[in-house]
This record gives sequence, C-alpha cells and structure tokens, in this order.
Amino acid sequence: MAKQDRAIRTHRTILLAAAKVFEERGYQAATISEILNCAGVTKGALYFHFRSKEELALGVLDAQDNHFHIPRRPCRTQELVDIVMLHAHRLQTDPMVRASVRLAMDQMATTLDRTGPFQRWSQLIQEILENAQTQGELLPHIHPPTTSDVIVGSFAGIQSMSQAFTDYNDLTTRATHLLRHLLPTITQPPIITNLHLTPTRGAHVHQETQQPQNQPTTTTTS
Amino acid sequence: MAKQDRAIRTHRTILLAAAKVFEERGYQAATISEILNCAGVTKGALYFHFRSKEELALGVLDAQDNHFHIPRRPCRTQELVDIVMLHAHRLQTDPMVRASVRLAMDQMATTLDRTGPFQRWSQLIQEILENAQTQGELLPHIHPPTTSDVIVGSFAGIQSMSQAFTDYNDLTTRATHLLRHLLPTITQPPIITNLHLTPTRGAHVHQETQQPQNQPTTTTTS
Repeated sequence: MAKQDRAIRTHRTILLAAAKVFEERGYQAATISEILNCAGVTKGALYFHFRSKEELALGVLDAQDNHFHIPRRPCRTQELVDIVMLHAHRLQTDPMVRASVRLAMDQMATTLDRTGPFQRWSQLIQEILENAQTQGELLPHIHPPTTSDVIVGSFAGIQSMSQAFTDYNDLTTRATHLLRHLLPTITQPPIITNLHLTPTRGAHVHQETQQPQNQPTTTTTS
Repeated sequence: MAKQDRAIRTHRTILLAAAKVFEERGYQAATISEILNCAGVTKGALYFHFRSKEELALGVLDAQDNHFHIPRRPCRTQELVDIVMLHAHRLQTDPMVRASVRLAMDQMATTLDRTGPFQRWSQLIQEILENAQTQGELLPHIHPPTTSDVIVGSFAGIQSMSQAFTDYNDLTTRATHLLRHLLPTITQPPIITNLHLTPTRGAHVHQETQQPQNQPTTTTTS
C-alpha cells in the first residue's frame, strides 16, 4: 500500500473513531484519549492529522456534505428532491453521516461552530434552486436563499423527530411528507406532477451514484 | 402566604433551577445536587415535589406546552399561525420554554423519553387542523395527523437553526418564512389572504393572553 493510501486510511479510521465517541458521549464530554483508544492509532498519528478535539469535530461535521454528488437531471427540481432523499437514506444507513448530523445538532457543543453544515447545505440547495429558477421551474415569488434556509431548517427538525420516535426508521417517509408540503409553494405545478418522490427515492439515487460511470473523478477521502 | 401558594412557588423555583442546570450541563451530566444548590431549597423539599432527575426533566419538558392558551378565532387557520408564532415569541423571551425545548432536542438524553413535547404539540396542532377542516378551511387532500407532524418537525429544525446562527434573534422571521412555505399547501387560498402573519404576531398574541379577560380560569403553576 502506497504511503498516501495509508495516510488516507488512517485519516478515515481516526474520523470514524471520533464520530463514534462524539455520538456516544457528546462533544463536550468526549476526550482525545477516548478517541485514541477507539481508533487504535498512536498519539503521533492522530496529531499528524488533527491538532485538536475541535479539528476532529470539524472533520466529522464535514463528512455529511463533502463529496456529495448527485446525478445531473434535466429537471433541477428533481435534483432538489434527490439530494434531500439521498441525505435521508444516508442518515438511515451511514454511521458517519449520522454522527455528523448529531454533532451539528449538539446544543451542548457551545465552543464548536456548528453552523458549517447548515451553511454548506443551504448553499448547495440555493444553487439548485437558482438553476431551477433559470430554467423557469419555480414560482415567480421564490427567493432562493430564503427558501433554501426553510428546506434545510425543516429537514433538520424532521430528522430529529424521526430519530426521537423511531431511530430514523420512518425518516424517508417523513421526508416525502415534508417535500409534498413544501414543493407546491416553490415549483410550477407541471414540474411537480413529473417528479419522482417516493420513500425509496434516496436508496435508488444512492445505487445510481455507486455505478462506475457516475463516480466523481476527483480523489476523495470518503 | 397560604400553604398551597408556598408549595406552588417552591415547585416553580425547583423547576426553574432544573431548567437552568439541564440547559448548562445537558441532561446526562446534570446532577440533583447541582439542582439543589441552584434552587436553594432543602433536599426534603425537592424530593417532596420530584422523586428523581427524570421527573425533574419531565417537569421541564411539560413547561413548553402545558397551560398553552391562545384566544379562540373565527378562522381556525389563524389559531394555527398564532400558536406557532406565540411559541417562537416565547422561545425568544421565556428561559423556561427555551430550556424545555433544548431538553427535548438533547440527543444525549438517551434514557429520557423526549417524545412527549413532540407528541403533545402534534396533538394540539392536529386538533386545530381538524377544526379548520370541519369549517372547510383546508385543501381537500389534507390528513391532519400527517400535516401536523410536518409542522411540528419542521418548526423544531427552524428553531434549532435560529439558535445556532443568532441565539433565537431571527426566529420569528424564520417562523414566518416557514409558515409562508407551508400554508399554501394546507389551506384554501381565500383563507391565506386574510391571515395575520408577521414576525411580531407572537408578541401581539402574547400581550392579548395577558389581558385579565383572556386568562384561563383554571389554577396553573406557571
């Protein structure tokens, strides 16, 4: 294994351990020693990649929205549906994404800037909305930054409620309910009637992104 | 002061102290000794009212939705707007409500049943929606339990995002954006054009409920 591959693998191992410890203990209570124990790497290896608990947390926070690719669609509103439903699917299936979202919602982490994921998600959704607007898909009154904040904020609450009630089991269903309540005030009616919007949509998009021809060409650490 | 009044006052003092300690330390880390210190009451007094940390937490959780009265309106959709905007206003101004919501959103409180406030809010909103439906205010496809869960879940996320970005300063504005995105898919258009829906609506309703003729006649502890 090349030196660079090893470094990438160690980086990933440490982040997974940090994610696990933050999820179990919360940001405030978690310690670097616990993360070291859980990762099974040397102190030197850990500090080579991350200089502090905060850097570890920011690395975990990044995991939910970095390298987030969805296939390009002729209808941009479908991309909006796909990215929301894919995120719901990943929350159900990927422990790293789950840990990242929990950390972003950790109110006790007062010394940690948790606005990053909210901002990056909002930026991502805003771009999709702007493209949809250019293509004439949106209703005339829509202001992409405002609508994007509404989508990101409301999804954050829906996932929190799903976690409290069913440990995410009903999340994809709740996500379709949310989109069915929001999209008619955002998009032109003929667009809505042509959308693929079912609870299994996220799993379908995930499978699509796993096909070799749809892989991003950039090297990623995830 | 009558014996009963004193008991009510002590009950309230203890709950306020518990709210403060849970908010600062999180449910898991908080201890009964810290709550005792903060409340300045005897151990006997505390255990007379609450038998455990869990009971204290459930008492704090109750505070956000108990004794929640809004004036009756001819238009039931206005009641829906009023209750959401009043809650946003109370989150900005009432430390007890703020502590209660933070506790409900405390993911580390794994041994505490945090579904109570979500369920009670959902029930409350569902009743308003059912009344609105009976009066013909809603669009034909609306299923009150589903729509109610969407409103409660999305508000929970909007308040969390507002807390992370501005410590609740922009919450009433964010709440109006949310309602403006949701109501057109819930309510008949002529209803919507007649709604009072501004960021100051919650403060206005709060003032109204402080008028003696609008006070609930039942004795409350808050």
